[in-house]
Amino acid sequence: MAQRAGVSLASTSRALHGTGASPAMVERVRAAATELGYSPDAIGRSLRLKKTFQVAFAVADIGNPVYVEMMTAIHEVLAPHGYRVVVMTTGDTTSSTVELVRSLSRGFVDAMILSPLRTDDELVEEIRQAPVPVVVIGRTLADRGIDSVSTDSAGGIGEAVRHLLGLGRRRLAFLNGPLDTTPGEARQRGFDAATRADDFTGERADAVVAADFTVAAGLAATRALLDGSDDGARPDAIVAANDLLAIGAIRAVRERGLSVPEDVAVTGMDDTEIGRVFQPSLTSVSLGSTERGRIAAELVVDLVDGDARAGRHTAVGPRLVVRESTAAPAATPQASGQDRASDAVVHGASVDAAGGVTR
Amino acid sequence: MAQRAGVSLASTSRALHGTGASPAMVERVRAAATELGYSPDAIGRSLRLKKTFQVAFAVADIGNPVYVEMMTAIHEVLAPHGYRVVVMTTGDTTSSTVELVRSLSRGFVDAMILSPLRTDDELVEEIRQAPVPVVVIGRTLADRGIDSVSTDSAGGIGEAVRHLLGLGRRRLAFLNGPLDTTPGEARQRGFDAATRADDFTGERADAVVAADFTVAAGLAATRALLDGSDDGARPDAIVAANDLLAIGAIRAVRERGLSVPEDVAVTGMDDTEIGRVFQPSLTSVSLGSTERGRIAAELVVDLVDGDARAGRHTAVGPRLVVRESTAAPAATPQASGQDRASDAVVHGASVDAAGGVTR
Repeated sequence: MAQRAGVSLASTSRALHGTGASPAMVERVRAAATELGYSPDAIGRSLRLKKTFQVAFAVADIGNPVYVEMMTAIHEVLAPHGYRVVVMTTGDTTSSTVELVRSLSRGFVDAMILSPLRTDDELVEEIRQAPVPVVVIGRTLADRGIDSVSTDSAGGIGEAVRHLLGLGRRRLAFLNGPLDTTPGEARQRGFDAATRADDFTGERADAVVAADFTVAAGLAATRALLDGSDDGARPDAIVAANDLLAIGAIRAVRERGLSVPEDVAVTGMDDTEIGRVFQPSLTSVSLGSTERGRIAAELVVDLVDGDARAGRHTAVGPRLVVRESTAAPAATPQASGQDRASDAVVHGASVDAAGGVTR
Repeated sequence: MAQRAGVSLASTSRALHGTGASPAMVERVRAAATELGYSPDAIGRSLRLKKTFQVAFAVADIGNPVYVEMMTAIHEVLAPHGYRVVVMTTGDTTSSTVELVRSLSRGFVDAMILSPLRTDDELVEEIRQAPVPVVVIGRTLADRGIDSVSTDSAGGIGEAVRHLLGLGRRRLAFLNGPLDTTPGEARQRGFDAATRADDFTGERADAVVAADFTVAAGLAATRALLDGSDDGARPDAIVAANDLLAIGAIRAVRERGLSVPEDVAVTGMDDTEIGRVFQPSLTSVSLGSTERGRIAAELVVDLVDGDARAGRHTAVGPRLVVRESTAAPAATPQASGQDRASDAVVHGASVDAAGGVTR
């Protein structure tokens, strides 16, 4: 069969030394070479797998719309270069992410764009030794020789806090996701810094931590927050660590017969489509998900097609987009309460000016 | 290097005849064998690629939350068997989908679950000859020897129509996506059948076709629909062909100063999370996305690990889930109009009984 197909053993032998070796063989070669003292990096280069024209995009939660926007941007950069994007989940833990990076040795993609929820030394080391280039969206890892794209979510939380103070809100609660995650840690730091700053004129209400960065977790955590505060101590604003948490918070606020934004203003983060089409539309801190995706994909193109050095880093700044969930309509000032005539007006407002509905 | 690593040329030769051959080699062998008159199916089996423990899930629009729910179900079935799910986009056309199925010869997955928006003979033939098993979620393809999972979206539209008639709605408009797609064709057929049935007591208002199955397209098409009808001829209900279109429709209705559900009731289809958390929450026809994903994944397990015959078919029935977008709260009957006091009550209702917020 091999002869009929014109595949000679000589070409097979060549394949072992360059392109075309199967992932299992490459793994065996790598293992043996490492034992003999070769540098894994050099081995990785010399045994570069056959090109697949696929790039993996790996995220913790494929249901979070922020990743859909990143993926669209990644696709738009990579498609003209002939690359297909495959989306994968990292799982919740660093060990499941390590396992995913390790699976790159199977040779099914030419590179990976990885947005891990949690990062530790083992994962960083695995990324450094990965058989194909890995670009990280999340923490800065330039000092570890890894290409990365980061944002300033801590600064973004500060923008949300100052926006709410500017609207006259005084009791600010913070609704975060798990603190042992990269975004959870950064956003907590941002809230702490903003509410301890000299120019902070408000009162800091409770901070609650949701079980994860989802609507359901935001709903549960905000219920607990509101249950724990009587009317006098109730927050008049909730800063949520992402849009999904903010949507959960809005539902919980309304369950209590309270109104958004009149009784409680709510801000999100990530500026996702679900936040833009939600009613009330969400005031949200954009972290440039489209731009971060685009930059990461450009780094991949350089690494795969070009001969770029690794360890580059780009930071994309935050930008607040004000919508209905914080900005009460100027035309209908009124007292707080449950059955307000203005709700229809607020909800009926046309799609926000910041670009509006995109999907 | 090959010798140091313990990879002999003999084992490489064996690899060519069984597991471990590189995709390019398999392709060459396949091409030569086809030329010599071998059946591609037999060749496919005999040249089964090395197992990757990856399964592709390919969909047209990765931003549609219905696919996130399918993917979660697929993951839950496949993970215990050691398979990772990679998500890919088919693109909008049958030719881009054909190209994707063809790329399976690269050997990066052991099977594919494919949910194409459009299907033609060329695509069906490509699926039949694919080097790894392909299970289709969408059209029934059992008669072509392909495993498939379908639903009855036409019947589901009928359920939405009868629900609206039961609520006393009379002028029903239909907001569909492109008619040349599998779902667009079926849902149009369902609306036509339901509104021409003997027991149809309403009036059929206009039908509009959105550019695609997205919020933005639903918004634009509903604007056109409402612009084209004066107050007397305005629909009092809109049946939308999926939840994203329905959300676009609700925004367009509210832009006109009208209220949902009082002035215009709106139904969606797919019963997605965005519909469940939207305010008003969406009445929607569930097409069992979780169940379809689960069944498709079980078919994959049988095909990859077992020795199942292909050409099996399962249909999952539709089920209407009633929520705020059609059901005005019983406690607050009132006249139609813009600034209604009930809106806050409607929007503040607790999360729907049908399972509620899951993410």
